[in-house]
Amino acid sequence: MVVKDRSYDREAVRRVLDRAGADGRSSLTAPEGRLVVEAYGIATPGEGLATSADEAVALAEQIGLPVVLKIVSPDILHKTEAGGVLVGLRTGAEVAAGFDTIIANATAYKADAKIIGVQVQQQLDVGHEVIVGTVTDRTFGKVVAFGLGGVLVEVLKDVTFRLAPTDTKTALSMIDGIASAEILRGVRGAEPANQEALADLIVRLSDLVTDFPELAEVDLNPVLATSTGATAVDVRILVDPAAAQQPEQFTTEEILASMSRIMRPASIAVIGASAEAGKIGNSVMKNLVNGGYQGEIYPINPKATEILDRKAFRSIADVPGPVDVAVFAIPAKFVPAALEEVGVKGVAGAILIPSGFGETGNHELQEEVVAIARRHGVRILGPNIYGYYYTPENLSATFCTPYDVKGGVALSSQSGGIGMAILGFSRSARMGVSSIVGVGNKADIDEDDLLTFFESDPNTQLIAMHLEDLKDGRSFARTAKRVSAKKPVIVLKAGRTDQGAKAASSHTGALAGNDKVYDDILRQSGVIRAPGLNDLLEYARGIPLLPTPQGENVVIITGAGGSGVLLSDACVDNKLSLMEIPPDLDEAFRAFIPPFGAAGNPVDITGGEPPSTYRNTIALGLSDPRIHSLILGYWHTIVTPPMVFAELVVDVVAEFRAKGIHKPVVASLAGDVEVEQASEHLYRHGIVAYPYTTEKPVAVLGAKYRWARAAGLLGGAQPSR
Amino acid sequence: MVVKDRSYDREAVRRVLDRAGADGRSSLTAPEGRLVVEAYGIATPGEGLATSADEAVALAEQIGLPVVLKIVSPDILHKTEAGGVLVGLRTGAEVAAGFDTIIANATAYKADAKIIGVQVQQQLDVGHEVIVGTVTDRTFGKVVAFGLGGVLVEVLKDVTFRLAPTDTKTALSMIDGIASAEILRGVRGAEPANQEALADLIVRLSDLVTDFPELAEVDLNPVLATSTGATAVDVRILVDPAAAQQPEQFTTEEILASMSRIMRPASIAVIGASAEAGKIGNSVMKNLVNGGYQGEIYPINPKATEILDRKAFRSIADVPGPVDVAVFAIPAKFVPAALEEVGVKGVAGAILIPSGFGETGNHELQEEVVAIARRHGVRILGPNIYGYYYTPENLSATFCTPYDVKGGVALSSQSGGIGMAILGFSRSARMGVSSIVGVGNKADIDEDDLLTFFESDPNTQLIAMHLEDLKDGRSFARTAKRVSAKKPVIVLKAGRTDQGAKAASSHTGALAGNDKVYDDILRQSGVIRAPGLNDLLEYARGIPLLPTPQGENVVIITGAGGSGVLLSDACVDNKLSLMEIPPDLDEAFRAFIPPFGAAGNPVDITGGEPPSTYRNTIALGLSDPRIHSLILGYWHTIVTPPMVFAELVVDVVAEFRAKGIHKPVVASLAGDVEVEQASEHLYRHGIVAYPYTTEKPVAVLGAKYRWARAAGLLGGAQPSR
Repeated sequence: MVVKDRSYDREAVRRVLDRAGADGRSSLTAPEGRLVVEAYGIATPGEGLATSADEAVALAEQIGLPVVLKIVSPDILHKTEAGGVLVGLRTGAEVAAGFDTIIANATAYKADAKIIGVQVQQQLDVGHEVIVGTVTDRTFGKVVAFGLGGVLVEVLKDVTFRLAPTDTKTALSMIDGIASAEILRGVRGAEPANQEALADLIVRLSDLVTDFPELAEVDLNPVLATSTGATAVDVRILVDPAAAQQPEQFTTEEILASMSRIMRPASIAVIGASAEAGKIGNSVMKNLVNGGYQGEIYPINPKATEILDRKAFRSIADVPGPVDVAVFAIPAKFVPAALEEVGVKGVAGAILIPSGFGETGNHELQEEVVAIARRHGVRILGPNIYGYYYTPENLSATFCTPYDVKGGVALSSQSGGIGMAILGFSRSARMGVSSIVGVGNKADIDEDDLLTFFESDPNTQLIAMHLEDLKDGRSFARTAKRVSAKKPVIVLKAGRTDQGAKAASSHTGALAGNDKVYDDILRQSGVIRAPGLNDLLEYARGIPLLPTPQGENVVIITGAGGSGVLLSDACVDNKLSLMEIPPDLDEAFRAFIPPFGAAGNPVDITGGEPPSTYRNTIALGLSDPRIHSLILGYWHTIVTPPMVFAELVVDVVAEFRAKGIHKPVVASLAGDVEVEQASEHLYRHGIVAYPYTTEKPVAVLGAKYRWARAAGLLGGAQPSR
Repeated sequence: MVVKDRSYDREAVRRVLDRAGADGRSSLTAPEGRLVVEAYGIATPGEGLATSADEAVALAEQIGLPVVLKIVSPDILHKTEAGGVLVGLRTGAEVAAGFDTIIANATAYKADAKIIGVQVQQQLDVGHEVIVGTVTDRTFGKVVAFGLGGVLVEVLKDVTFRLAPTDTKTALSMIDGIASAEILRGVRGAEPANQEALADLIVRLSDLVTDFPELAEVDLNPVLATSTGATAVDVRILVDPAAAQQPEQFTTEEILASMSRIMRPASIAVIGASAEAGKIGNSVMKNLVNGGYQGEIYPINPKATEILDRKAFRSIADVPGPVDVAVFAIPAKFVPAALEEVGVKGVAGAILIPSGFGETGNHELQEEVVAIARRHGVRILGPNIYGYYYTPENLSATFCTPYDVKGGVALSSQSGGIGMAILGFSRSARMGVSSIVGVGNKADIDEDDLLTFFESDPNTQLIAMHLEDLKDGRSFARTAKRVSAKKPVIVLKAGRTDQGAKAASSHTGALAGNDKVYDDILRQSGVIRAPGLNDLLEYARGIPLLPTPQGENVVIITGAGGSGVLLSDACVDNKLSLMEIPPDLDEAFRAFIPPFGAAGNPVDITGGEPPSTYRNTIALGLSDPRIHSLILGYWHTIVTPPMVFAELVVDVVAEFRAKGIHKPVVASLAGDVEVEQASEHLYRHGIVAYPYTTEKPVAVLGAKYRWARAAGLLGGAQPSR
C-alpha cells in the first residue's frame, strides 16, 4: 500500500459532530462513525443502510457477497448482545431472512429502541484482526491504543499506548511493541500485516482526536490488517465536550522565573516561626539557620520580637526588603489570610507545610488557597509537606533535619514518609544530593515544574521522583522527554494497582488500566521507571557515577564461575547484551587466565588468582574499544583479599580515566564481611559495587543503559527487543 | 464426557514399538502413533490410509466429508513443509485431486522418500486447539506439557510442564495454569472446553510414557478440545531406547546412614594436613581445631609427626580407631590413591576440596574417583569445594573461616564464590545457621542427599540452596515435595537462560526451554524459588522468624500514607491478599486513629501520631482472629522516634505471643538513619524489618506465604491465581 497524502476533511467531521451535538447524543451511529474516520482517510468496508429486506438484498449484491448485517439504533450500543449482528450471509435469501431476524431481535431486546435500519457491510475475512482505539485518559488526555484483536487483547491484555498525536515512527513502535508482535509478521505461513498501512491508520486516528478533542473514545475494533492495507471494520465513537478540556499551564519561562526564586531565594520568611522547641515553626527556623543558609531569614510571629537571634516581625508586610519564599508553619485554617499578605508582599513561593487540606477531604480550603495564590502570582509548594532542600544554597527549609552532602541528585516525593526514607538513605549512603522536595498534595507546583527547574540547574545531574499520580501527565511527558535527553529522570510510580475510578465504557477504555498507560507513556518519555523504593534510591545513587556507555557490548570478568552465571542471568533480566567475544579478544583474555579458566563471556579467571590477573583482564576490558561496559565478579580468597581487589580496581579505572577512557564498571563482591568495606571503597571511587548480591550492580548498569538508549546517547547498535 | 475407565492395552503399544525397533526406526508413522495413543484410550479422528486416489475418495466418504489429507512417509517428518498436508477437502473430486497433489509434492520434496500412502482424516473444526506433549528432559526425565495451540504457544510460549506421571488434579492445574486459561473457559461466546476430558487425556498420555519410557517425545498437536471431549488430531512420536535410562539412586536409609556420619562425625582425618600457614591443609586443620569441633582430628601427612598439637599419621591406615570423614587437601592427581586407603578404612564421607576434576575438563579423573568411592561405599562431597559447616557439632571443615552463629538455616551452594557470599552475609546479619555445604562438581552427594539429611535434622528448620543444575531433577522434585511439606525449601536456580545443549526435534521439545521446566516443576514440588542471590539470603534469614500464617488476610498498618501505597503494590507483586476489612473491624480501627486518617486497608494512622496509636492498632491487628498477618509502615517523627516504635512493636508482639497468638509481622521503616538501628532491634526480636524499602519485608512475607500454601499449612482459603 502507498500511504496516502494526509489531507483531512475537517468540515465533514464538524458536520457530524454538530448534528450529534444538536441531538444531545453522547455516541455516534455506525454510519456517522464511519463518515468521521473516512474523513481522515481511514478505510472502512463497503456498506450501506437498508430499511427493508429488499433494500438489504440489493445493497448486498451491489457491495458483493458475503456480507455482515448489523442493527443501527442510537438506543442499542451493544449490538452483539442484542442479537443485532449476523455474519457470513452468502446469498440474497440469507440476507433477506437475516434482515428480518435482526429487526425482531432488536425489538425483543429493547421494545422502545429507535431503529434506523440495518447496516449491510462487506465481509472481509482474510487478514489479522487488530484493535486501534483512543481514549481520553484522566492523567494523560488523548492516548491511542493498539493491540491484537479477539482473545489476545481481551484475555492477555496485550495492548500498548502512546500519547496522541503520534508520528509514524512511534506508531510503528506500537505495532512492534506488543508481546504478540511476531504474529503480525506472519507465522505458520500466514500473510504478514502491512505495518506501514497500520501505522498510517494509527497516525490518522490520533490526528482525528487531536483535532476534535470532544471525541472522547474511539474504537476501531476490529481493524482488518492485510498485506496491502488496513480497514476499520467496526467504528464506535463516544463524544463528550468535557473531553476537550485542557489543564491550566504555565510557560517554561514562567516556571523558571518562579522556581529560580524559590530554589535560590535571597530571603525567606517563616510564617509561624517559634522559639519553642518541638514546634514546627521552631524546627524550620533551626534548620534554616543551622543548615547554613546565607540569605535573609525573617521570622514572622505576632507575639515575638526575636527568634533564634533574628528579629521577628508581626506580619510579612512589616519586613523591610523583598521576600522570595514564605515557609508556612501555621495551622491550615490560618493559611488563607496569611497567604493574602504573602501575595501582597510579592513572594514567589509559598511553602505550605501544614496538613488539613485536600488530603483530609478539605478540598474547599485547598481551592481557596490556590485561588489566592493565583491572584497574586504566588506559586504554592504543598500543602501537607515536610518542606524542601537545596544544598547548593545550604537551604533546608523543612521541619526534619538539615542535609549537607552536596552532589548531583535531585529527588522529590509526594509522600512525607517516602521523603524521610530518601533523607535517611541519602545520609546513610552519603549520597550527593542537590535537592529534596516534598510536593505533597500538589495543589500547584508539581513534578513538571521541578523537572523544568532541574533541567536548567547546573547543580543537578539526575532527577529521581516518587509519585502517586500526575496532575497533568501530558505536560509531564513532554517535559520529561525534553529533560531526559540530557539528564536521567527516574520515576517510582506508586499505586500501580489503582484502576481508576471511571468505569470503562469502550473496549479501549477497558484496556487502559492506569498503570499500563503510565508504563508505556513514561517509557515513551525516556523516563526510567524504578520497580520499587529501594531501586529508586540505588539508581539515583549509582547512575550519576557511571559514565555513559558508548555501546551495548557488556563483558563480565569474574573470579567466581558461580557469580558469572548469576551475573549473566541479571544481564538478561536487565536487557543487557553480553558481548560475543571475537577470536582475537578471546585469545588476548586467555593470555592472562589459567588454562582451565574460561574466556568467552563471562571471562572466568577462576578463583585463587593473584591481583595481577584481575588487573590485567580489567585493563584489557577497559582498553579494547569494542568493549563498552564491565561487570566484575569478585571472589574472596587469601591470594586477593577484598581491599586488595578494591584498590586495584580503583587504580586501574583511574589509570584509564586519566587517559580519557571512561567506561561504566560495576562490581558484585562475594566473600566474608570484609567485602562490605571493599564495596564502599569502590563506590566512593565511582565503581558501583555491592556485597552479597549479583542483582543490584547489574540493575543499576541496566538502568543507566535504559536511559542512554532512550536519550539516543549510545554509540553502538540498539539491541533487538 | 464421562471419563472412561483407564484400562490400557499395553500389548498393542508393545507390538508397535517392537516393529519400529525391528526396523531400527526412531519415529513412528502417523497410523502407528494413533494406534499407540488409542491403546491408552486417547481419541483420534476417524481416518484411514489410502494408497490410491480412489481409495482416498472411498475412505473420505466413509469417514464423512470434509477431510484432511496427510502424507505418510517415514522419511518425511515435517509434513507441512513438504507440501504433504491438505485441509478442507469437501467433495470426492477434491479428495482425488488432493491425493495426486500430495504424492507429487512429497516426491518433489524428497525424491527417494519411501511413501506409505496418504492418510485420510476426519476434519474437526469446532473447538479449541491445544497442544499436549511429553519430552524426556535431561534433568527431570519424563515431563508432560500443555498449552494452547497455534500462535499462542508458538509466539507467546504460553505453556506449562509437570512431571509424568501426573494425576487428574495436577492435570487440571496445568489447564488452569497457563496465562491464556480463560480462553478455554469460553470467551466472546465461544464454547468452553471440557476440562475433565482434557485432564483425562493428559493423564493417559503421561501414563503411556511412564509405562513405555522409550517414547522419547510425543506431540499431540493439535488436540481439539470441545465441550464434550478431546481428540488428538495429529500424533507424532519419537522413540529412543536411551530415553528409558534411569539414574543411579540410593534409598533414603542409605543416604541417612552416610549423611549422618558425615554431618555428625565422631572423627575426622585431614588428608594432606599441613603445619605451614597459607596451605589449604593448614587452614582446614586450624578451622577444625579453632572452630571447636570436639571429635577426634587426625592429621594425615607422610612427613610430619605432629600438626597443631595433634599426632600426625603417615597414612589413614595407621589411624588407630574408626574414621567417619576424610577431608582431602591434596592435589587432584593424588586423590585416587588416597581415596583407596580412605575406602579401605571404612570412611563414610570423602570431602574433596581440590579442584582439577570435571570443572577443568578432567572428567576421567572424576569418574575414576567416583568408581573408587562406590567400590568402598564411600560418599563423596565435591570435588572443587570450600568444604562444609555443621554448627551443632562446631564443625568447620573448610579452608575458609569458622562460623559459629547457631540457628535453623541450612544452606548449600554449587559455587565457591556463592558459598563465600553466604558466609559473609550470614556473619554480617548474624543469621543463625545449622549448616553451609559446598557441593561443587556434585560427583556424588547432591542436593537430594542434603535435603534428605536436613529433613531429619532437628537443628534445621529451613533449607536454602544455590544450584546451577540438578543431577537427577526427578529425584530432587520427589524429595523436595516431601521435605517442603515440613520445612521451607528455597532454591536459587542460576543459569536461567541456558536452553540446554540438545537441539529440539519436536514442538514440545522446542517449548521445553530448560528454565520453564525448572520453574513449573520446582513450584510443583513446593519449592520457593528465589529470584536472586540477595533474595535467597533474605528469605533464608527471615522466613524462619515468621510464624506460619493461619490464613490469607493481610493488613497493612502505616503511619505514612505513601508507604501504604507502596506496600500495597508490593502485596500485589507478591500475591498477598489485602483483607477486605469488615465494618465492625473498620470501626474498631477508627476508634484509635484521627478522623482524617483512613481505615480500610491500608489502615493509615497518619503521621505525627503518638506511640499509643501504633500500639493500639497493632494490638487490634494481633487480637482479631480474622487478621492473619501484619505489615507495618513506620514514618519517623519526633512524636514516635524510631527506637520507641521498634520497642513498642517488640513489646506488643511479645505480649500476644505470651497469650499464644503468633502472627507474622513485618515492617518497613521510612526515616532518618536511626531507622537502621530500629530495624535491627525489630529483626532480632522476630519482626522482619528493613529501612528504606517497602519491597523487601513484603517479599519475605510473600515467600513465607508461598511456602505455607504449597505445604498446605494455611488455615484459610486459597487465593485465586
